[in-house]
Parts: sequence; C-alpha cells; structure tokens
Amino acid sequence: MTERIRIGILGYGNIGRGVELAIRQNPDMELVAVFTRRNPESVKTVSENVKVLNIADIGKYTDSIDVLILCGGSATDLPEQAPVYAGMFNCVDSFDTHAKIPEYYESVNKAAKSAGKTAAISIGWDPGLFSMNRLLLSTVLPEGKDYTFWGKGVSQGHSDAVRRAKGVKNAIQYTIPIEETIERIRSGETSDFTAGERHLRECFVVAEEGAEKARIESEIKNMPNYFADYKTIVHFISEDELLKNHSKMPHGGFVIRTGRTGVNGEHRHTAEFSLKLDSNPEFTASVMVAYARAVARLNREGRTGAYTVFDIPLGYLSPKTPEELRKELL
Amino acid sequence: MTERIRIGILGYGNIGRGVELAIRQNPDMELVAVFTRRNPESVKTVSENVKVLNIADIGKYTDSIDVLILCGGSATDLPEQAPVYAGMFNCVDSFDTHAKIPEYYESVNKAAKSAGKTAAISIGWDPGLFSMNRLLLSTVLPEGKDYTFWGKGVSQGHSDAVRRAKGVKNAIQYTIPIEETIERIRSGETSDFTAGERHLRECFVVAEEGAEKARIESEIKNMPNYFADYKTIVHFISEDELLKNHSKMPHGGFVIRTGRTGVNGEHRHTAEFSLKLDSNPEFTASVMVAYARAVARLNREGRTGAYTVFDIPLGYLSPKTPEELRKELL
Repeated sequence: MTERIRIGILGYGNIGRGVELAIRQNPDMELVAVFTRRNPESVKTVSENVKVLNIADIGKYTDSIDVLILCGGSATDLPEQAPVYAGMFNCVDSFDTHAKIPEYYESVNKAAKSAGKTAAISIGWDPGLFSMNRLLLSTVLPEGKDYTFWGKGVSQGHSDAVRRAKGVKNAIQYTIPIEETIERIRSGETSDFTAGERHLRECFVVAEEGAEKARIESEIKNMPNYFADYKTIVHFISEDELLKNHSKMPHGGFVIRTGRTGVNGEHRHTAEFSLKLDSNPEFTASVMVAYARAVARLNREGRTGAYTVFDIPLGYLSPKTPEELRKELL
Repeated sequence: MTERIRIGILGYGNIGRGVELAIRQNPDMELVAVFTRRNPESVKTVSENVKVLNIADIGKYTDSIDVLILCGGSATDLPEQAPVYAGMFNCVDSFDTHAKIPEYYESVNKAAKSAGKTAAISIGWDPGLFSMNRLLLSTVLPEGKDYTFWGKGVSQGHSDAVRRAKGVKNAIQYTIPIEETIERIRSGETSDFTAGERHLRECFVVAEEGAEKARIESEIKNMPNYFADYKTIVHFISEDELLKNHSKMPHGGFVIRTGRTGVNGEHRHTAEFSLKLDSNPEFTASVMVAYARAVARLNREGRTGAYTVFDIPLGYLSPKTPEELRKELL
C-alpha cells in the first residue's frame, strides 16, 4: 500500500482522542482533521499539528478523507449522525446499544448503499471482539454454552444512577465478575447463573455535606434494575480521593464457552477470550482504527453498505498482503 | 437454509472419526460417505448407517457431495491429495506444516480455481483459531508483542523422536507451557523468551527389557532440536500404564498479546485466547465442519479458489442468517 489511508475524526472526547493516538501507531494512515460541534479553538488535541474544524465544514472534505471515524455516544449522537455521514463518507462507529443494533444497521446500510459508501458499525470489544468470539465458538462447539463477563471496569450507566441518588455529590461504579462463578463455569457447570451470581457492583461515593450516609447506601442498594439484584458494596470517600484514585478508565472481561464432543459427549472443551485494558476508550479506538483499514479496502473493491465484525474477513484488518499473512501469521 | 449440506469424509483416522461425530451436532449437515484407502469393510464408523467406500469410487460422488473434508496427515497425505480433490470437490483440510503453507496454498488454489471449486486450507486451532487471534490482536495493538504457547498436550513429532531412541519400546511426549514465563508475560514483560524458557517436555517411556535406562534418558535429553534446548523430564513406566494413562489426546494452549497505547505508551492492554481440549482431533474436526459450511456458501456465491481463516468472514461459519447474528450475538 503506497498511499496512506486518510482518516477524519468526528467528535473529540475520550474515543476521539484514542483514535488520534491509534493513528500514530499505524504508519499506513494519516489524520486529516478532527471535526467538532464545539468551538474548534477550545479543542486541545494530543499532537500540535492536528487540524480541528467545526462540523459545519465537513462537507468540503468528502474527497480528502477516505474513512470518517464517528466518536460520538450511542445514546443520542450516533443514531442521528451515522445515517447522515454514512451518506457522505466511509465510516466506522462503536454503536453499542445491543438491543437497537438491527434498526441502526438498517438505517446506516441504506444511507451507505445509496451513496456508494461503506460503513463498519458497532466496532470495539463488546460489541466487537467479544461478539466475534461468541459467534466463532458457538459454531465450533454447537453443543455448549457461553458466558460473557465484564470488568473489572467502570459502568457509565451505573455510575450515573448512583449520582442520581439524593445526597450524592459524585460517584463511580465498578462492575466486577464473581470469581467463584467463573471457576464453576471453567470446571464445566452450565447453569443459567443469575445476573447477581455473575457480577458484583462496587460504588465509590462522595456524599454531600451533612447527608445521611446510611440512607444513601440503602437507597443505592435497593435501586431496582441497577443494584437491587446484585451484591453491592458502597464506600464513602472524599472528592479528592475520587479524582485521585478513580479517574482512570480500566475495563476488560471475557467470553467463555464450554462444549462437548465425542460419542456421548465424553470430551469437554473450554475456550476463553479475555481482555484486561488499562484504558477502555483507547483500546476501543484502536479496534476502530484497524477496522477503518478494512472499510477503505472494502470500498475500493466496490463493496458498499453497512458491515459488522461478522461480515469482514480478518485479513482486511491488516496492512500486510494475504501472502505475507499466510507466511508469517497462519 | 432448507437443503442440508452434504459432506464426504476422506480418510478415517482420529480426525475423520471426529468429523463424523461433529456432523451429528450440526442439523444442517449430513454425512454422505466415508472414503478410505483401506478395505472399506475393515473400517468401523461410530454410527452404523454410514456408507464406507473405497477411494477408487470417489469420482462417482462429485454431484452428491457439497464439501469433502480431507482428514489425512500433513506430512504425505495432504500435499498429494489436496490438489487432486480440490479439482473435483469443494474441500476443507487441516494442513498444519506452517513453513510449507505458501506453496500448499498455491497448489490448492490453482486446482480449485480451474475447477470452479472452493477450498478452505489449514483449518483447525493452530493453524486456525490461534492464527486468527494472532492476526486480530496484532492489528488492534500494533505496538505490542504476542506469544503462542502449546499444551499441555501430546506432540506426535516428539513422541516419534523418543520412540526412535535405542532401547525404547514405546513412548509419549507432552509439551508443557512454563507457568512462570506466562506470568512474566501477563505482567508485561516482552523479552524474546527462548523455546526452552517457554515450554518444558515430559516423556513417558516404556523401555525394552534389559535396556539401560540411564543411557536412554541421556540419549533423549541430548537429542538435538527435539530435547537438547529444553528442560526435559523422563519417566519410565510399564506398557500397561502407558496404555491406561496416556492414550487420550488432550491438548490446548493460548495466544497472548500485550500492547501499549497512550501518549507515551502509558496504558497497557493484555488480550488472551486460550483452549483446553479433552480431545485434540475431535476439536480440530469440529472447526473443520464449521468451515465446511462456509466453503459451501462461498462456492454457491461463485467465490472459488483456496481460502484460509484470514479470508472468510466469521458469519459464514454460522447456520444463522446475518439478521439473526446481528440481533442475537453482536
């Protein structure tokens, strides 16, 4: 590949910043510009030479960007943005509202197809690498069962829920897999473990001055959907401690499948894919950047519309040729 | 999919038997016949109703088999058979001589292309699922390093080497990953560990009557290429014990990649894919059967020639539709 893949970033939060950093690790790519809804002068990129533009200018760049990476959130940004920009650019996004993926796919597919563009949706680690393992392992071991565990890591939704409790000034919530359950699965158990048997929830809470801690703790622990069905641990800490010890964004988790083969299922097999990430947004961004390479290639081959990790051959993620891959990695 | 995929098996050893068993777990497939170089009457399949035929009859089945699964060995069977049968059938094989994959690919690709057939080569777990993880993780974390460990499991090549030592009646060799090295990698070390730092070798040896055990042990431990560079443990056991405790075929292993992201590589990420298999041939056969589904579909779409795990989208392995996969597994 002699010409570099020209990338645009839409939205400069944690993911956008992670994409900027990931592009620096891939010599076959270059960052053309960051587009933002904010005042461009208020956006501070990592590298000094990055062009930051208002989103109003994005239409001028349709010929100078090969792939636009959409770095907005799944709740409101992406459902609005993706169908618009997939009609102008080849795109990659990390849409992660599992239940809404089918309709999201349809809207992006339609926009991309009619514009002759290619979009990779729901790229990251879950949905993403974890989904790939669920699919691969379920087809290889059809008589089996898989489980997905998340954590230890911050859940934004649960942190927000804690912050809504009365008397809470600030808070963060970690989702933590329960080791004992994992060991039972590794040993071959295939029960339908409840949500509360799989994960516990640990909250670090900064209380408002004078707030009654016992009441806050009880309110959190009894919150339906979020905490009532889980073992929940609540710690009260100072605002300083929260900023100092809980502002990183680690995450991780794993997919395990156990299955049986043989004349009477006498042989057991266990497959496990695990991630331990110091920075959830930087890792997610790194996955998106690898898929940007695939999207550029699919579009060059005239393959348009929306794609997921299930539809794209792994070889398309690599800068190496098929010959090199067969020789070096197979 | 209303019509079942019609499968043929060529060669009925451990892998062929595993393919027979795996087909029973996939309701969208049916086994048409087993082809053998032996006298068909001497072949005892697991199910009683399986048609066993001499390989001389295989030409009559080109219209009634959708995918032929080649279950021969990589040393001599596959290099001869694959180019021949890929010119008559869609094929799947488990060719695993890593160094010879490029030339093998070329010969199968040429035969399949000119006959309008599709072949998936080098399918299994290494090459196969491990290769997929090496590729995927190296593109997602380009600034990183990966390691592959095998075992605990039987190495056929090393067992054969032990059996060639003078005074050895029978033997089996297990390759065992060294836990301490794995822990160092998981903690972030990225040294080039030597082969001997990664794996140790454990041999269970049945000596000929009257043979000098000390000399046998020394001969094994000093065998160049096979054992001289490793910590090697030799146990002498009886033939009965060998048959009783060492006739299973467990295997496994893992691919680990650690990598860094951030402004100055300040964030570390670890990804790990591991397998623990009670039966190496049955698991390998299960992977091959999933890829038979992909091969049938690729051929229906007119995509001919040789493919590896790098070239085939994961969705092709599943009997589910793309809509179902996006809804249920993404």
